[in-house]
Order: sequence, then structure tokens, then C-alpha cells
Amino acid sequence: MGEGKVDLNEAGIGEGISEVIVTTESAAGITNAAPIGITTTIEGGEKKYFVKLYKGSQTLANVLETHTLAANVTCDAVLFVNAAFEKVDESRFTDFEGVSVLTEANAWIVFTSLLVEKSSAFLRFQLKPRAVKINKKEVKAINRALNAVIEAAILATRFEIITDELEREELKRMMEQYAEIIQKCGGHQEKEAMGILTEKCKGLSKE
Amino acid sequence: MGEGKVDLNEAGIGEGISEVIVTTESAAGITNAAPIGITTTIEGGEKKYFVKLYKGSQTLANVLETHTLAANVTCDAVLFVNAAFEKVDESRFTDFEGVSVLTEANAWIVFTSLLVEKSSAFLRFQLKPRAVKINKKEVKAINRALNAVIEAAILATRFEIITDELEREELKRMMEQYAEIIQKCGGHQEKEAMGILTEKCKGLSKE
Repeated sequence: MGEGKVDLNEAGIGEGISEVIVTTESAAGITNAAPIGITTTIEGGEKKYFVKLYKGSQTLANVLETHTLAANVTCDAVLFVNAAFEKVDESRFTDFEGVSVLTEANAWIVFTSLLVEKSSAFLRFQLKPRAVKINKKEVKAINRALNAVIEAAILATRFEIITDELEREELKRMMEQYAEIIQKCGGHQEKEAMGILTEKCKGLSKE
Repeated sequence: MGEGKVDLNEAGIGEGISEVIVTTESAAGITNAAPIGITTTIEGGEKKYFVKLYKGSQTLANVLETHTLAANVTCDAVLFVNAAFEKVDESRFTDFEGVSVLTEANAWIVFTSLLVEKSSAFLRFQLKPRAVKINKKEVKAINRALNAVIEAAILATRFEIITDELEREELKRMMEQYAEIIQKCGGHQEKEAMGILTEKCKGLSKE
């Protein structure tokens, strides 16, 4: 597969930031999954892919060891929330081109990572696609609850690091708005995902 | 096609509320398109489809004349915003089973409408699928900007009817949050759609 010549649009990675579940392995072969945004830019007609990995994350540690990450494209709300807050069980992984990926994902893209920027909080990598597989194409109408889960999950991860009480109150208020959308528009997957998030935030506010 | 036996999941209409573009025709054959949520409920294992149509809307007027509406499943942000605020050009329609649908949609479902509830603000219909066509299946990663466009479009339609200044300020604040997400995560489609929305709201605030 010619590097830099592959258009990942067919595999679901479009212009802007694509929210995917990134799977990685440590050098010792221990798998990890985390929801991460992959940025697609177009410069002079050429698409380039980038990712910011935050210091302290297992994904960054693994990428520094293996220079490899896989993007798993999925719309499974529960899988996103699991990947954000819990260890995704080993049984849900499968092998693709020697890399651990999530069996249920609609598409897999294996990338080689190239460090391009260091900041105090994160390292930024350019990603070169090295293998692509499309497992399942589908038609799916927009459901406001699916994205409300993603937004709520992002808030919940902030909830973990914010100590200011006013900011926490604002986050809680926004979480309630998302919970309302999920209650109104969601299917059982989105409702299950929100249940996990609510439990997560309850636990945190007691700490 | 056996009514009530069709599972529309394959055509993108899943559990909860599916945001689609509903196309209808007046008895005289004049087409209309509007973004509307179709609700899928599961009762005793059987899926049922419902829609609320608001009084004063062209969609309701047309459905009362023809007892027919088509759901167009799409993730095209610009098409959603166009359908919400502008007349969708006749050239973008095509015929499917005698009903006008949007050529670019990923799937079409033609429904027969059955009035089941009247309120002061809306009529509620049960929808019986009568023809389904899947045009294009795809893989698409979640993009936060796409749903931000949908949420911003919903806010913009409220902006038209709210007169209370405090409420309008709150709406503007939320619009700015969505605009930020679209700027950060969107591709050119989402940015174009947000441009249309911003213009729309500017115009309204001067009235």
C-alpha cells in the first residue's frame, strides 16, 4: 500500500476531526483502547493525518514503544464510553496485520506514527496509513443522542481533573442537558452508555 | 411489501429519534423538504414509527392532503440547514415510487401516515412503511461538528420564535459553543452549514 496515496474517506476518516477508538499495544503486547480524535488536514490537495496524545496516557506510552496505532471506526456509544473509562476486555480484540483492533468496529486503519511536535501537555504525531480494512458499511440516520453521549463522555473526562466547584457545577448542568437529549432521542445503547457516565460522575463527586 | 413487517434499521432508522429530511408534496405536486425527527418505538418486540408535525408547517399541510411522506436519510450538514431555512431546489428531487425524494440521500423510506393524536401545537401520526430503497452504504466516523450543526440548526429555528432577550442571549451563547466545535472539528461541509446558520441568526437579531 503506497503511503500517503491512501484516501481514508472510504474507511470513514473524513475532513476535520474523526472521533475513533484508538487501540494500541505495549511492547510486551498488552492491549489498550481509548477514544481519540484523528485530524485530517488537506494541504495542496494532499490529505494528512495527525493525532495529539496526552502525557500520562497509556496510548502515548504504547505509541512511543511501538510507533503504531490503529483507528477503529464505530458508532457504538457503549464502546466509546467503555474505552473512555474502563478497561476494554481482551476478548473484544482481534488481530489485523499484526495489530490488535476491536472486532466489532466498522473499519480499521493501522497507522505508523511520526513525532512532529512536543508541548508540555501532549506530543503530536503525523500518522501514515499502513493498512486499511472496511468490515461493514451501513446507512445510519443522525441520532442526537449518539453525539450527546460523546459530548457527555468528553465532559466526564474533564470532570475528573477539574477541582473548581463553579466549573464543576457548570459541567453538571451541561451533563444534565445531554442526559435529557439522550432520554428523549436515544435507543437502548445510548441510554446504557449514559447510565455508565452518570455512575462515573456520581462516584467522582463524592471523592 | 408487507406493512408492519419491514425493519427499517437497514435503511438507517434505528431505535429512538432518527433525524432525517422529510420530503412531501402538496396535492398540486409542489415539493417541500424539512428536517424532522422520526421516532421508532419497540412495543412487545414490534417496531412502530411515529412523527409529530407542527401546525403551520408545510409538511403538515402536505401530509393532510396526501397521507404520504418520505424520509431521506443523510449526513449532509448543508442539506439539513438548507431544508431548515431555505427552499430546497426542485432540481435536487427525484421520483421514487411516485413520491418526490432527495437524489443525494443515502436511503429513502416512503410512509403512509395515520393520524393518532391531536394537540394544540401539533398532530401526531403513526407511519407505515410502504417502500424502502438503500442508495449508498458507507463507513463514517463520528464527527462532533456534524451534530453541532444539527443542534445549532435546532437552536436557530427557536431563535426565530423567542422574543425574551435573556433567552435569546442564552441561545446565542450556546450557538457560539457549537460554532467553536464546528470550527475545531468540522470539514468544509459543516463549516459551510454553520456559515448559513450564522447569517440566518444575524438577520434575525436585527429585526
